[in-house]
Amino acid sequence: MKLADLGEFGFIDRIKAGVAAGSGVCLGIGDDCAVLDLPPGHQLVTTTDMLIEEIHFRREWTDMADLGRKSVAVNVSDVAAMGGTPHHLYLSLGFPKTFPLEALDSFIKGFLAACRFYQVTLVGGDTCRSPGPFVISVTVEGSVPAGHFVTRGGARPGDAVYASGTLGDSALALHLLAAGKTPDPFLRDRHVNPQARTRLGAALGQGRIPSAMIDLSDGLLADLGHILECSATGALVEEELLPLSPSFRAALRESPELVRLALAGGEDYELLFTVAPEREKDLPAVARQASLPLSRVGRITEPGAGLVVRAADGSTYRPATGGFNHFRG
Amino acid sequence: MKLADLGEFGFIDRIKAGVAAGSGVCLGIGDDCAVLDLPPGHQLVTTTDMLIEEIHFRREWTDMADLGRKSVAVNVSDVAAMGGTPHHLYLSLGFPKTFPLEALDSFIKGFLAACRFYQVTLVGGDTCRSPGPFVISVTVEGSVPAGHFVTRGGARPGDAVYASGTLGDSALALHLLAAGKTPDPFLRDRHVNPQARTRLGAALGQGRIPSAMIDLSDGLLADLGHILECSATGALVEEELLPLSPSFRAALRESPELVRLALAGGEDYELLFTVAPEREKDLPAVARQASLPLSRVGRITEPGAGLVVRAADGSTYRPATGGFNHFRG
Repeated sequence: MKLADLGEFGFIDRIKAGVAAGSGVCLGIGDDCAVLDLPPGHQLVTTTDMLIEEIHFRREWTDMADLGRKSVAVNVSDVAAMGGTPHHLYLSLGFPKTFPLEALDSFIKGFLAACRFYQVTLVGGDTCRSPGPFVISVTVEGSVPAGHFVTRGGARPGDAVYASGTLGDSALALHLLAAGKTPDPFLRDRHVNPQARTRLGAALGQGRIPSAMIDLSDGLLADLGHILECSATGALVEEELLPLSPSFRAALRESPELVRLALAGGEDYELLFTVAPEREKDLPAVARQASLPLSRVGRITEPGAGLVVRAADGSTYRPATGGFNHFRG
Repeated sequence: MKLADLGEFGFIDRIKAGVAAGSGVCLGIGDDCAVLDLPPGHQLVTTTDMLIEEIHFRREWTDMADLGRKSVAVNVSDVAAMGGTPHHLYLSLGFPKTFPLEALDSFIKGFLAACRFYQVTLVGGDTCRSPGPFVISVTVEGSVPAGHFVTRGGARPGDAVYASGTLGDSALALHLLAAGKTPDPFLRDRHVNPQARTRLGAALGQGRIPSAMIDLSDGLLADLGHILECSATGALVEEELLPLSPSFRAALRESPELVRLALAGGEDYELLFTVAPEREKDLPAVARQASLPLSRVGRITEPGAGLVVRAADGSTYRPATGGFNHFRG
């Protein structure tokens, strides 16, 4: 079967057939709009992301099912970072007429598997031709109990800075691949199949525990930089405190300079959040509930103190915080 | 100033500076998600559309401010077609590093002007590089009083079929342009600056007047075809009843075959809806409220009767209803 035989509406029907029923979905794919019910007493939280071939991924290096899963993960991760729970997604795709149908099917398979995993429902989207690159745009809607959302702007001096999971695994996998080496299965999976921390984000929001939160897409320092900018504070990060996986520690023993990947490597999709000292006692229960380690990596400091890193040898330095910027240089 | 000097975040700040405050916006551009309040007792209605250079538009033929306005109009039109009121938008853009900043500024200017016109607020999006084509993805969220949404699936035999405004103007403008002629300012404006019928859609939904509704993006016959498919009915459309502008009538007098543009031409963004006979008496008040003519163009017929057109000479025929399909042929 080829795309030209299936046609636009045949392709949409194929996607529709794989969508499971979802709570709150009054009307899903197939009309001018989706119609949805939010849980009573909740606010709507929405985010959107675009992924473009040759910029965000290269087809020859990318498994299409992984890309489908990742398209869901990066979006629900943003809802988690607000302390919300994701519910509904919209998927818009642009691809050339000659695009292999198997590649599309594989992408959709991964996308819908991730929807089941995160308990979110695909309720709409758009399908159109592209003159070249494969273009993916995903929007996710979630909800948060009214007033319980967590912004980037609430960190206060003295707050502890926490990260979930382990840091730098995705960047280390990419580093090894770029050097022609083979990352171990754990590292590879962290890179190609990142897990958004949706249960953790919802639990933190529900308990109103963090003063500020963001998800780690651009790297610890760059994303902490966003919190500092929005909160008008400084921070001290301690290399000794960085939560590292056994695979990462093994690599670090051979090449100590790889610590920069835990500080500045992107795409971990862990949550980074700040907590007032009196709320730190509530974290162990949340960590158990989400089955994830939560580790303090530093502390928020006074406005004007900037972002400072204390290296393993006790010396301190001011890192460049610039994350990825699509149009610089 | 060039894009490379401004950078991704500078460009986003530039957009943000032009966004007016909106009702229901608890948190807009600048965090992981937007946070929004829906009016109490309302359901969420959401739609998304993708526009890609070389497929949906060509830069050399397109004024960027017109494209910005149109990107808003085609999306809020879908909310109107559900009987809802649009509130918030998300704009994702992909463009090459070398894209002229003036073109982007012009696009954003048109986009934000349309936001003001339709009283909707830009609350989020994504900005990234593209290897070539200018890519636009817009998502709109609106609300509808709970249970008052209008689908494509409620038309019943005996219902009248109505269209707002006049039909075929946009297609006639395109037809003239393609023939190297200059459409008059009215026709040109209908093509480059289509107006979504948001006040009409909300009023029809509020009053629960239509049994089914869709917006006219693919042409009367194709879009009526969607209603017939979802409602499992047939319909009779009468050419004599088609609401035509003076400009369109003038062209028709010279070339009677142009009637096909009123039947099958796309991008009018008028609303097409069906009404039970006992509710037709409620239409004049709505037409006055929305300052738009509402014209009966036909009637819904029994299932299996298919779509039939009665020509001006009284003869009937079964048209091909196929609208635009991105991957056929």
